[in-house]
Amino acid sequence: MEPRPRARDLGIPLGRFRTGRWNAITDVAGVKVGHSTIVRGSGPLRPGKGPVRTGVTCILPGGANVFADRVVGGGFVLNGAGEVSGMTQLVEWGLVETPIFLTNTLSVGAVGDAAVKWMLEQNPGIGAQHDVILPLVGECDDSWLNDVAGQHVKEQHVHEAIQSAAEGPVAEGSVGGGTGMITCDFKAGIGTSSRKLPENLGGYTVGVLVMSNFGHLHQLRVGGLPVGEILAQRHADLPRREKSYGSIIAVLATDAPLTSHQLSRLAKRAALGVGRVGSSAAHGSGEILIGFSTANRVPRETRKMVYRMKVLLDARLDPLYEATIEATEESILNSLCAARDMDGVNGNLCRALPVEEVRALAAAWQAASRAPAPPPPSGKD
Amino acid sequence: MEPRPRARDLGIPLGRFRTGRWNAITDVAGVKVGHSTIVRGSGPLRPGKGPVRTGVTCILPGGANVFADRVVGGGFVLNGAGEVSGMTQLVEWGLVETPIFLTNTLSVGAVGDAAVKWMLEQNPGIGAQHDVILPLVGECDDSWLNDVAGQHVKEQHVHEAIQSAAEGPVAEGSVGGGTGMITCDFKAGIGTSSRKLPENLGGYTVGVLVMSNFGHLHQLRVGGLPVGEILAQRHADLPRREKSYGSIIAVLATDAPLTSHQLSRLAKRAALGVGRVGSSAAHGSGEILIGFSTANRVPRETRKMVYRMKVLLDARLDPLYEATIEATEESILNSLCAARDMDGVNGNLCRALPVEEVRALAAAWQAASRAPAPPPPSGKD
Amino acid sequence: MEPRPRARDLGIPLGRFRTGRWNAITDVAGVKVGHSTIVRGSGPLRPGKGPVRTGVTCILPGGANVFADRVVGGGFVLNGAGEVSGMTQLVEWGLVETPIFLTNTLSVGAVGDAAVKWMLEQNPGIGAQHDVILPLVGECDDSWLNDVAGQHVKEQHVHEAIQSAAEGPVAEGSVGGGTGMITCDFKAGIGTSSRKLPENLGGYTVGVLVMSNFGHLHQLRVGGLPVGEILAQRHADLPRREKSYGSIIAVLATDAPLTSHQLSRLAKRAALGVGRVGSSAAHGSGEILIGFSTANRVPRETRKMVYRMKVLLDARLDPLYEATIEATEESILNSLCAARDMDGVNGNLCRALPVEEVRALAAAWQAASRAPAPPPPSGKD
Amino acid sequence: MEPRPRARDLGIPLGRFRTGRWNAITDVAGVKVGHSTIVRGSGPLRPGKGPVRTGVTCILPGGANVFADRVVGGGFVLNGAGEVSGMTQLVEWGLVETPIFLTNTLSVGAVGDAAVKWMLEQNPGIGAQHDVILPLVGECDDSWLNDVAGQHVKEQHVHEAIQSAAEGPVAEGSVGGGTGMITCDFKAGIGTSSRKLPENLGGYTVGVLVMSNFGHLHQLRVGGLPVGEILAQRHADLPRREKSYGSIIAVLATDAPLTSHQLSRLAKRAALGVGRVGSSAAHGSGEILIGFSTANRVPRETRKMVYRMKVLLDARLDPLYEATIEATEESILNSLCAARDMDGVNGNLCRALPVEEVRALAAAWQAASRAPAPPPPSGKD
Repeated sequence: MEPRPRARDLGIPLGRFRTGRWNAITDVAGVKVGHSTIVRGSGPLRPGKGPVRTGVTCILPGGANVFADRVVGGGFVLNGAGEVSGMTQLVEWGLVETPIFLTNTLSVGAVGDAAVKWMLEQNPGIGAQHDVILPLVGECDDSWLNDVAGQHVKEQHVHEAIQSAAEGPVAEGSVGGGTGMITCDFKAGIGTSSRKLPENLGGYTVGVLVMSNFGHLHQLRVGGLPVGEILAQRHADLPRREKSYGSIIAVLATDAPLTSHQLSRLAKRAALGVGRVGSSAAHGSGEILIGFSTANRVPRETRKMVYRMKVLLDARLDPLYEATIEATEESILNSLCAARDMDGVNGNLCRALPVEEVRALAAAWQAASRAPAPPPPSGKD
Repeated sequence: MEPRPRARDLGIPLGRFRTGRWNAITDVAGVKVGHSTIVRGSGPLRPGKGPVRTGVTCILPGGANVFADRVVGGGFVLNGAGEVSGMTQLVEWGLVETPIFLTNTLSVGAVGDAAVKWMLEQNPGIGAQHDVILPLVGECDDSWLNDVAGQHVKEQHVHEAIQSAAEGPVAEGSVGGGTGMITCDFKAGIGTSSRKLPENLGGYTVGVLVMSNFGHLHQLRVGGLPVGEILAQRHADLPRREKSYGSIIAVLATDAPLTSHQLSRLAKRAALGVGRVGSSAAHGSGEILIGFSTANRVPRETRKMVYRMKVLLDARLDPLYEATIEATEESILNSLCAARDMDGVNGNLCRALPVEEVRALAAAWQAASRAPAPPPPSGKD
Repeated sequence: MEPRPRARDLGIPLGRFRTGRWNAITDVAGVKVGHSTIVRGSGPLRPGKGPVRTGVTCILPGGANVFADRVVGGGFVLNGAGEVSGMTQLVEWGLVETPIFLTNTLSVGAVGDAAVKWMLEQNPGIGAQHDVILPLVGECDDSWLNDVAGQHVKEQHVHEAIQSAAEGPVAEGSVGGGTGMITCDFKAGIGTSSRKLPENLGGYTVGVLVMSNFGHLHQLRVGGLPVGEILAQRHADLPRREKSYGSIIAVLATDAPLTSHQLSRLAKRAALGVGRVGSSAAHGSGEILIGFSTANRVPRETRKMVYRMKVLLDARLDPLYEATIEATEESILNSLCAARDMDGVNGNLCRALPVEEVRALAAAWQAASRAPAPPPPSGKD
Repeated sequence: MEPRPRARDLGIPLGRFRTGRWNAITDVAGVKVGHSTIVRGSGPLRPGKGPVRTGVTCILPGGANVFADRVVGGGFVLNGAGEVSGMTQLVEWGLVETPIFLTNTLSVGAVGDAAVKWMLEQNPGIGAQHDVILPLVGECDDSWLNDVAGQHVKEQHVHEAIQSAAEGPVAEGSVGGGTGMITCDFKAGIGTSSRKLPENLGGYTVGVLVMSNFGHLHQLRVGGLPVGEILAQRHADLPRREKSYGSIIAVLATDAPLTSHQLSRLAKRAALGVGRVGSSAAHGSGEILIGFSTANRVPRETRKMVYRMKVLLDARLDPLYEATIEATEESILNSLCAARDMDGVNGNLCRALPVEEVRALAAAWQAASRAPAPPPPSGKD
């Protein structure tokens, strides 16, 4: 099977900042990603049996133990028809103190429960010290391909996602929590991208990872180009899920020294990136964006009264905002580019993005843009 | 064992509106409450074994099936160091579409998972129809008395809470999710209260149920009276939990025809009621308040475009605001009045509120208030 | 002087819904728009003297007297580096009860003061009846062209804007509050657009009017097409304001029967429309979006307790969301298309959008999109 | 005329922390307060003529020029039926960069306009440097006593408030913006209070200043004691304003090194302090709370990329929370204690708080609290 291209291999205009080494959230030093993918069975839906097209993805924010040594975090809800368990505390305290998990809607409880168990093993004193854990678990609905009511994600899958978490390149498409996810009627799932600012703008890296599951074909914009309208005409017979209970969860990481409030503002810009790909944040779509900075850690236990926090001046945020939008947009496109055709419950078939068509459209735009500008009108414009 | 009094039996000034029949959230027609209480073992903490002082409480918002026939809801976060899973969607959609569960912090995942399983049984088509569930599960930390890391709440307890849910009087104190909870250093847990507005103010009922677990002794105010300061002097040796990871979850129900925005505003007034009892919404205290109206139901499936919603005029809200504050205040006091001494992990002992002392202080205030007013000063005041 | 084209005259892909009659916010029945434009002097900045490039725009939400007969409203802050006075009450009460004014940053106070005076004249009993007014006044910073410190907007200009307010076509570009505004380094200002949903989606109209003043040249996307990158190369010498204290205020109107919460959600989608044109919601850019529905009016005085409000079912919102995004995007582009070259303080020159270049790029894209799709790869995609 | 007592002179229980030197917001080093009070005429309302009972209060956050050297700020809206112009930017940027003004509702525009003019004089380059100002102007409605529609606050009053601003003791009651304000049916207005934490809790000072104008007599709680219920019975004939368009604006200052997010959280606790005095945050009451920290200053101009900000550890916030609640409660009570009887438009008469009655009730409570506790019941409680 030939490898799938990534979005930037297609010649799409993807912004002005360069990517990090892996063009992935793992370009932020210390951040690790792991997946557990569950694909089993085919044919008619037999609840509890399958077909199964789901999984869990885990993002470790770096450091030996994020519970003991928290990172600063924030978030934004573009449309709240979804869930990131633990988000209330994330926004109030401005801290990420657990790994971040992504899975299907009906497995939030099971994944949260397994996450707690795993963290209790890692931090055996939690209960005895009258301390508690609220794990971050985001979800999208994969029921068009997956036997979601079967609740097939088990403790072992959470362990597998954690244990397989690694730095370096990140598997994309139909993997982990993204296994059964769909975007603009094409197969999608997990995608990731990053930007590294030039040194004179701070030299910071921002990485994004999405579990992408939103939108309709006609809405798709690729590097801005409204290709969805064209593909909708060309592929009028594309199989589409009827009800649109889509969603997207985006996770941002950066090594820029940001406060929680700044990270929440960054998360809002990730929402603009989602919008650029075509999202209208549909009523039934849970579009939730969270982020963390590895540059500011807050220890769980300290005797200090005051600490000195590095803070990027607000007036320097704009390049990070643009980089975040770019990386979010590209993450979603990467999820689309990486995923292949997949069938699921009741033979529902979700097609891969026709990447050669997108490549051709991007090339046509590039050619158009190199044409000479028309002369200005004789009168003053 | 003699029955414990309820707060209003103590002569405390508790506002100007009269209660409903049961002085409970169940005074709102159709609302049911059930508990599953787990008390097992004593002595040293042996994680996974006990001692166990926990449980789960379930509030059914009325109607045959709240998933099919949702009620309008809203909420407010006073301090977000806690969790009500599903709240993001509650606030976005303005709908309650699952029962509401209250439990300990480390059982949120397990209770959510069990809730999903139960709802899948009740609504077998959910997965097949590409629909999903985000159950509402609120938590407080009972780790000072309970082996919270043992995660002792199981699917059977969730079923028990649901199946035991009933209209009429509600058990209070150390029951259900409130079993191991503590308020202002006294044993507390579940409490409930209601108010019924006079007919000329709409005749509506508002009920509140709290799982109360916040605050320090010196902060306690009873009907406003700062009795905590006095009790703190008298009971200097009262055992107190050292770390204050307290919290409170309040659930409001009303039959007033409110929009989601109005319910969120009502939930904010419940927060003022929490404050009146002494809460400073401490940094580590998750103080979350949600509410629903049984008067406005939104069917899951409909072919309509527009519906006609009854809405209470905003200008008529004020009596409901006061009633909500009163009922919230009294709910917390009821949780304190109902609970008895309880010991838990490592012999930690939490005392019951000394109700006779409170009764005496309330009586002294009532006597003082009946004394004649001093004459105004000779000069104009 | 030849008339300037509107955006859709350029062949730009602008979505799937059709416009209202005027392709303006005034397509929502009853809504009126008026401008007062102040252009005076040129050359060096002499604070208090000029040059003056500013004004005020007024949107009347329809009805005889919006103070007595309020319309339901809502709003969303994408980035809060700006001001819409009165917005706090708008969001709390969910009502628009004054006209909406748009002006420059340092004239918010003067316009608010004049608005109060005018409303006191219209509603002479306000003070005597112990009632008050909080007018809605939005602002952007036009200081690159305008002597903003001169505070040249006076009561008479507010009156002129109100008195000139009319239904029908709306003047765009460098008029009213938009006189000195700039977008993506081109002259912009006021722009408007509308969409009318097909009858089977409710037949509702949504109109948007923007005062657009944000962004950098390279960010500009026109119907998605990233033309800013191309124009930035071609027009490297384009004069640009150095500091980016840009902003955008968008006002939505609709005849769909929406609640305040639904209107706030709609306003969030307008933010996605702003993002599509290239906004990164820069740190210094106040991007604020408010909306109202003419279908739901709430009388100031009533003896009722409960009223019956028409409400569009949430599940029917998605077409309105898309229509709002489309109309917001087109409004901004219309502001760019309508505005001509303008010079201002210290000879600062702001160029008009080179519409013929945009037309050519749009045509090239349309041609590319009509090319045959490449054959799928021989192997399975 | 005998001086009026302050609240703590009455023997009211007012919490556990000690006050600063002046028991005023000016106990935070550098903070200055000034008033301009306008009292003119009596008898029937003649709009534009009087009677006038209004003014403006100005709080200077310290430092030579807050526009050039901003302080970190935050805020919270308990009920948004009111206005603090500039608050959107305050919350987004987390900075206070202008003085804070308090006035009547219909003078927000005029005061904002005058504030801009004054700041332009102080910072002559603002316009030329393409910079702008959004002044913070809060309001309450004084129309029951004041000819609010006469808009009697003029530029000179704003200047007077600024120029009279001083450190040290602060005039309270019917002064400045508080001149015509009413609380729980008694004359109120401006009040202030402070707390200084012990050194082991950081030694920080928090000061509060309120313009208090909310509530009904029966709601009044004094140090928790529900004296309003008693006074309502005793003073059944107390003149009361019929419509309750009350409000309260609270301004917090502290020298604790807080972030904007922490200040917004602190502002939320000030709301709890408002609630303790009896506020139900009535539908028509604008209850808005803003705060700033003098310990963290952010220069307007800097070449830095990153700065090091002192931040109080969140886990150390709780004493500040309690101190804020105490100081807010006492500020409101001080506004009530300081104000004397005042008549206004149409002879409307607002009575002063009967302080001797309050003193007697407080004394009775103190006596009751010193009585011996009743013996515990013979059986285990």
